[in-house]
Amino acid sequence: MNNERLMKQIEFIVEIDRLKQIYRQNYLADASRKENDAEHSWHLAVMAFLLSEHSIEKNADVLRIMKMVLVHDLVEIDAGDTYCYDEKANEDKCEREIKAADRLFNILPEDQAKEFRALWDEFEERKTAEARFAAALDRVQPVLLNYTSRGKSWQEHGITTDKALKRNRPVEDGSVTLWDFVKGMLDDAVKKGYMER
Amino acid sequence: MNNERLMKQIEFIVEIDRLKQIYRQNYLADASRKENDAEHSWHLAVMAFLLSEHSIEKNADVLRIMKMVLVHDLVEIDAGDTYCYDEKANEDKCEREIKAADRLFNILPEDQAKEFRALWDEFEERKTAEARFAAALDRVQPVLLNYTSRGKSWQEHGITTDKALKRNRPVEDGSVTLWDFVKGMLDDAVKKGYMER
Repeated sequence: MNNERLMKQIEFIVEIDRLKQIYRQNYLADASRKENDAEHSWHLAVMAFLLSEHSIEKNADVLRIMKMVLVHDLVEIDAGDTYCYDEKANEDKCEREIKAADRLFNILPEDQAKEFRALWDEFEERKTAEARFAAALDRVQPVLLNYTSRGKSWQEHGITTDKALKRNRPVEDGSVTLWDFVKGMLDDAVKKGYMER
Repeated sequence: MNNERLMKQIEFIVEIDRLKQIYRQNYLADASRKENDAEHSWHLAVMAFLLSEHSIEKNADVLRIMKMVLVHDLVEIDAGDTYCYDEKANEDKCEREIKAADRLFNILPEDQAKEFRALWDEFEERKTAEARFAAALDRVQPVLLNYTSRGKSWQEHGITTDKALKRNRPVEDGSVTLWDFVKGMLDDAVKKGYMER
């Protein structure tokens, strides 16, 4: 009986291995290659417990933030990575991702399928302090890598400060400290010629 | 004041980006390429909260297990990946990794440097139920990927069932259920010709 439950968990664990092959638009810090979703999710999870003191909510549930960032991109296994500045591709993103969530999470035993779906819904809805902080990390991390790789991805896509400020505005809802940090980094990126004003 | 603290945290976050370029000996599930440490750590963290019900300790602290698996390989940024079946390379592994821990974790503010070091020490010592379960996951995951990639890495290194059983024996200290699962998988790997007896 327990074995059937374990087999569903193992099937899911093998299935999500594919996240390691979903590539994003940003580069690694040394600009040598683009980053994939599994690496990005690992980085966010470490940041979650390292930076949680900067959350707007002082008693935020760090475990739930970590779970959210670890699973938030799993739907991209089916739906693919939608570049955040691509307005056309973002039109049907929601529909594609819900279909992916329905398929993927239902590989799991029913109670865990529900838990994963609830974590993903919470992340997407951005209503709780934990989801807002998770969403802030999901924006801060690529800005940091784009800055460190001297704006390689920003330049390839013609991203200006205006666009970047608009895209990253939700950071403020999760952490005032990180929002100040992002604004400072974007200012500096312009000064250093990594990004057009 | 707070800014100086944040700057140390950010420096560490950029530094650990290098974990994404430390490649392991095992392949991804589809055998297309080798896996890196950041991807491996992400996978273990998801497994930690998915499989914690199978821990020998029913009330294990899942948050600490997740933190441990997320940081357990950071020392390899300086010390490199030591292949688990390479006895010669394992001789000075400990020394190289302690030196790496001293440099890396001390980039952080003092309290967090201590927390990271304590997590890594706990993982390495394998005394607590949480560390034993983390160590079990760290073995189960590559066995699962080696099995799914039809034993590609086992064959490249001439790994037999005897060697694999010896290497993976600590799984039993973290989870009897997962140890039974690993033994079954290794049996099946021999039957399917993925591994020599």
